[in-house]
Amino acid sequence: MNTASQRPPPRQPAELASFIDHTLLKPEADAAAIRKLCAEARTHKFFAVCVNGAHVRLAADELRDSGVQVASVVGFPLGAMSSMAKAREAELAARDGAREIDMVMRIDLAKSGVFTGVRDDIREVVRAVDGQAIVKVILETGLLSLEEISRSCRAAEEAGAHFVKTCTGFSTGAACVEHIALMRDAVSDRVQVKASGGIRSWEQARDLILAGADRLGTSSGVQLVQAKASTGGY
Amino acid sequence: MNTASQRPPPRQPAELASFIDHTLLKPEADAAAIRKLCAEARTHKFFAVCVNGAHVRLAADELRDSGVQVASVVGFPLGAMSSMAKAREAELAARDGAREIDMVMRIDLAKSGVFTGVRDDIREVVRAVDGQAIVKVILETGLLSLEEISRSCRAAEEAGAHFVKTCTGFSTGAACVEHIALMRDAVSDRVQVKASGGIRSWEQARDLILAGADRLGTSSGVQLVQAKASTGGY
Repeated sequence: MNTASQRPPPRQPAELASFIDHTLLKPEADAAAIRKLCAEARTHKFFAVCVNGAHVRLAADELRDSGVQVASVVGFPLGAMSSMAKAREAELAARDGAREIDMVMRIDLAKSGVFTGVRDDIREVVRAVDGQAIVKVILETGLLSLEEISRSCRAAEEAGAHFVKTCTGFSTGAACVEHIALMRDAVSDRVQVKASGGIRSWEQARDLILAGADRLGTSSGVQLVQAKASTGGY
Repeated sequence: MNTASQRPPPRQPAELASFIDHTLLKPEADAAAIRKLCAEARTHKFFAVCVNGAHVRLAADELRDSGVQVASVVGFPLGAMSSMAKAREAELAARDGAREIDMVMRIDLAKSGVFTGVRDDIREVVRAVDGQAIVKVILETGLLSLEEISRSCRAAEEAGAHFVKTCTGFSTGAACVEHIALMRDAVSDRVQVKASGGIRSWEQARDLILAGADRLGTSSGVQLVQAKASTGGY
């Protein structure tokens, strides 16, 4: 798998496309909105779409043979369902066509310092979809201290997760360069880093990639790749 | 089961207790916070506690032989996971000791006018826990028109749900007298009505009950039952 160090960072907004998980998670997003999201992802060659579980089958149908992946969220956005329920939700999403699972970790356990619990919860999901989908672990960085972020990243790697990810977009906080650099540092090269939450400008997207982000989760993908770069690169 | 018409509304704050689902759904709520919630529910004789799935087993242990029920949320707070995933989540919560399931309906389908879809999604959950737990259907009224609220209530009753409920507390909108009266009117006497979202004063709680609410979901239960009634009743 690619990590930030293995591919060149984008010099122009259009080069952001392959970094983007084109995301629509609002509860009122209907089938028409999901079809539009998928059409945009095809047009702009985004890496993936990221949708709620109820829409995975539709997105997989819309994106057949497009090269665009389907990601589904699990335990989203609170991360507070039981590990078994997360595992079953992930399994069903994979069966419906999701090749990436963006799960929310047990935030309460991280806040209580029980990182073995954080790890075991993630491991249930990784095992449930093993070989069918990769697993990204959303930390909800806005609720965590720097040490809790770092230790959660290590718990995710121990559990066999493929990605650590910043925010749900439904809580407090947003992706920032400081957290991405910390997360990149906390895990080995086997684990990738996804920045998500409040990414709305080309400069911000570029800086997050330069700090170590391999993927960007955003609902502003179309605007981002069509932006006029204020600096003509970096 | 009781409905509003079958038991007298409270004349004093302390009489609210049996209407209250004592609720703690923040993702960072840890085991200590859940134990405190359960202890408060015992002390004040609340109807139930309402917790996330990860805490159902702990709450059921804490409340053994107390007479206080355990309610768990499902598909919470977006309602946008697949019906199968909601059904499995509900089944697991019931197995862990939940006797009430507060599920979020498919808001997108209600917004699109597909009320057969709203109904079928609810029916999957009702069937999954049939005989083990009752099902409350959260509409997220803040996102709906009056007609969408009314039709969602009828879909919930058709699906066999036991309650219709206003809000998650994680979106826009709050419980209000107008919506409760509309919901009470939309369903038969077999279905109860739960008001939730932003309930923080005795007067507000009393007015919601007078409008037809059989249950109140709130994180302010302790303050509510200890309030000094400004009017000495109604």
